[in-house]
Amino acid sequence: MADNQLPEILERQVVARSRLLRIEAIDLRFSNGVERQYERMSGSGRGAVMVVPFIDAKRFILVREYAAGLHSYQLGFPKGLIDPGESAEQAAQRELREEVGYGAGELRKLHTVTMAPQFFSAHMTLFVGHQLFAEKLPGDEPEPLEQVIWSLDDVDELLRQPDFTEARSIAALLLMMRSNSQGG
Amino acid sequence: MADNQLPEILERQVVARSRLLRIEAIDLRFSNGVERQYERMSGSGRGAVMVVPFIDAKRFILVREYAAGLHSYQLGFPKGLIDPGESAEQAAQRELREEVGYGAGELRKLHTVTMAPQFFSAHMTLFVGHQLFAEKLPGDEPEPLEQVIWSLDDVDELLRQPDFTEARSIAALLLMMRSNSQGG
Repeated sequence: MADNQLPEILERQVVARSRLLRIEAIDLRFSNGVERQYERMSGSGRGAVMVVPFIDAKRFILVREYAAGLHSYQLGFPKGLIDPGESAEQAAQRELREEVGYGAGELRKLHTVTMAPQFFSAHMTLFVGHQLFAEKLPGDEPEPLEQVIWSLDDVDELLRQPDFTEARSIAALLLMMRSNSQGG
Repeated sequence: MADNQLPEILERQVVARSRLLRIEAIDLRFSNGVERQYERMSGSGRGAVMVVPFIDAKRFILVREYAAGLHSYQLGFPKGLIDPGESAEQAAQRELREEVGYGAGELRKLHTVTMAPQFFSAHMTLFVGHQLFAEKLPGDEPEPLEQVIWSLDDVDELLRQPDFTEARSIAALLLMMRSNSQGG
């Protein structure tokens, strides 16, 4: 890893901007002299969180939420952006309260992932939540999220669901199972 | 799934556009009457592919590639967009030749994933490649990709690498291992 000399950023420029998003063009010179323009999403680099919340030893909660990119409802774990001033743990506890109406007595960090790092800078911290207790916070969703309870015994069936496709939810599921099997 | 009535798209508009990317604002009315504007990346919806290429029964090939979003080199599996007219299998064979210099005598479809479907419409098909043979095609990368050989015996160590974080690569790795353990 240390062998790779990072390309030099010759110029950065915001080339397109919407209400929520900014696209940045960066002119790069790679260590072999080749120059190339890349585009990436420019943002606050606000991290995100995702939680696999267990309601008992075997069963966990998924939510079904509208996904505008696919224009369909998608099944996945509760997730959201970290607000300014929040830690990842605090954001995970808040999102859990907003999206499924629970706090977690125990919140364990599972892994940190990135998403399409060629375009995005943000990291997502994955958590597993246990010892849930009812506590609801109002969220900013336009409609209540449908909750779906699933069992560890039926993971193959979950992986076959046509609306359970998000790479970060799949990674969270399989990392959680790997951690369980290693007694983590 | 069928219970969720999709929000009605009241209006769509490209609100920002760069050389490569377009941001679309969509005005939605949810089935409960709430109206909300979402933004998403608008594109050709070209799918993508990723391949876990095995050079023998135990060892597979990763590549280390510059990721502009993070401005760092990231470790992951060979991947790329499906070109117009290509099948996912053809794209996987081409990317393998371009990025690591091999064709796959056997290419098995592992899973299909999405990435941040609230913003993106594209699917990525994950493959496992076996029976590799040397065959190089020129790629469009600005520099040759560093190749890294890893063993199935050292997956925990791979998951601990600070530059192996991409959710789709992690999903591909763990889905491949799950498939192996089920004799798939």
